[in-house]
Amino acid sequence: MSAIYDRVALIGLGLIAGSMAHAIREGGLAREVVGYARSAETRETAREINLCDRIVDSAAEAVADADLVVLAVPVGAMAAVAADIAPHLKPGATVTDVGSVKQSVIDAVAPHIPQGIHFVPGHPLAGTEHSGPRAGFASLFRNRWWLLTPLPDTDPAAVDRLTDLVRAMGAKTDRMEPAHHDLVLAVTSHAPHLIAFTMVGVADHLRRVTDEEVVQYSAAGFRDFTRIAASDPTMWRDVFLHNKDATLDILGRFTEELFVLQRAIRMGDGQQLFDYFTRTRAIRRGIIEAGQDTAAPDFGRIAPAG
Amino acid sequence: MSAIYDRVALIGLGLIAGSMAHAIREGGLAREVVGYARSAETRETAREINLCDRIVDSAAEAVADADLVVLAVPVGAMAAVAADIAPHLKPGATVTDVGSVKQSVIDAVAPHIPQGIHFVPGHPLAGTEHSGPRAGFASLFRNRWWLLTPLPDTDPAAVDRLTDLVRAMGAKTDRMEPAHHDLVLAVTSHAPHLIAFTMVGVADHLRRVTDEEVVQYSAAGFRDFTRIAASDPTMWRDVFLHNKDATLDILGRFTEELFVLQRAIRMGDGQQLFDYFTRTRAIRRGIIEAGQDTAAPDFGRIAPAG
Repeated sequence: MSAIYDRVALIGLGLIAGSMAHAIREGGLAREVVGYARSAETRETAREINLCDRIVDSAAEAVADADLVVLAVPVGAMAAVAADIAPHLKPGATVTDVGSVKQSVIDAVAPHIPQGIHFVPGHPLAGTEHSGPRAGFASLFRNRWWLLTPLPDTDPAAVDRLTDLVRAMGAKTDRMEPAHHDLVLAVTSHAPHLIAFTMVGVADHLRRVTDEEVVQYSAAGFRDFTRIAASDPTMWRDVFLHNKDATLDILGRFTEELFVLQRAIRMGDGQQLFDYFTRTRAIRRGIIEAGQDTAAPDFGRIAPAG
Repeated sequence: MSAIYDRVALIGLGLIAGSMAHAIREGGLAREVVGYARSAETRETAREINLCDRIVDSAAEAVADADLVVLAVPVGAMAAVAADIAPHLKPGATVTDVGSVKQSVIDAVAPHIPQGIHFVPGHPLAGTEHSGPRAGFASLFRNRWWLLTPLPDTDPAAVDRLTDLVRAMGAKTDRMEPAHHDLVLAVTSHAPHLIAFTMVGVADHLRRVTDEEVVQYSAAGFRDFTRIAASDPTMWRDVFLHNKDATLDILGRFTEELFVLQRAIRMGDGQQLFDYFTRTRAIRRGIIEAGQDTAAPDFGRIAPAG
């Protein structure tokens, strides 16, 4: 594969940027990958594991002469980073981001982007519950979606070039309106995460059931929630604060629906429960047919040694 | 391993009984495993795949001369099965069940158990989202918990012998009061399942987000809920109807907690969200340390081919 960009600058060196570094370097998709993270400890770790070709000590230095700049910081930090790098961007460069919310990132970043720079917001639907510079791996994006939400006046050639990079990392791409993106993700990601955090919190608070029991007997369903609820707290705080309206909308619908099922339980309406559970089962089949999850029982987890 | 029972009768031939059949036969833990299911189609499938040593056409025939009878039917069907087999049980035999709720199973089954028969209620905390006679596999119980909730007057020797079988299938056992079991499981299993069913139902109903999008973009969290929500509808209907009080209690707590977090989002209280998510992260570590889940990122799922 020949290089798609000359120099790629990664701002923020967590799971996503780290995985991009691995994928770009393994695929030879850029001549040089330069990395920067605000935390000196993160930069030190990144140097230790040789995550990028160069780790530098300022965002300004990272973006110098880069023809692609990737903002891979929590959504709430995007505005400050954009303001910081703006004067140092190379004319004609593309700036993208990997934030889980798009409208508020556009509102935060676009005003800082100078004339002659192409801003193409993006969101890879990929991740694990691990975070930090050591968490990345080259295959993270393989067969996952990477949504782009370009603004109406963005240079199509810049969007196409970023699309080429994303595909070369193994992802599938689609383009979407930012507000629609935020609603779709509220359903498929943000609300499920808040619900998982909540259920784990309930278990944590419950005094009649000791922690020990909740942990030991977690394989009956609860442990799946804890995986999601182990995700990065800063990232998720920012997601909820910056996709507030769509998330609250979906949570409102969720609560209504939950009350309907709670009432069916209270009233002993078995038929309503059975019909509901039969419908939800069909959705799982669709996800497996779409290649978005494994059909193996229990995600193919092997019983841990013990 | 020498046989622990002479003849084991499995009533119901779904995921749990099927896995028991595999584990008992592979381990030589009984001289003979006899199976019965109400559905002729299930019996036919079980014969086809040679699930048991014998598949018979009535529950009465299955329990004849069995020294262990396993009731592996949905919780709501336990009473009828118990009434059906009671006159045919061998004196001195043990009857156990694998229901996810214990108090209501005890209430339903115990009155039918004749003098001289040992009833030892049980619950293996193991399963997958698949069901039916083809879903079972011998290692399902390995390193999983199998809780027993014996009644105060049960013969300790009968409980010990069943404990030996459970351990020989690879499970860990503990004994518990039935009501406490039902509360613990409401937290670790029943409420999480209802919540997952609900979230999948919300996605299903949402008209502004097409099904296609929900499915395609599910990898961002939602797909984990769909796995749980693909579980057997009949089994789960019965669980909720028969563990009504504990489930409604936990769901009430869940809703309160969810409202607190929803309010924090609405008010923009990032610190509260951050602190909450930091606490829930710690629970995940406990589950991995207890050997109840894999530490591999994303459950070790490999990106599906596509």
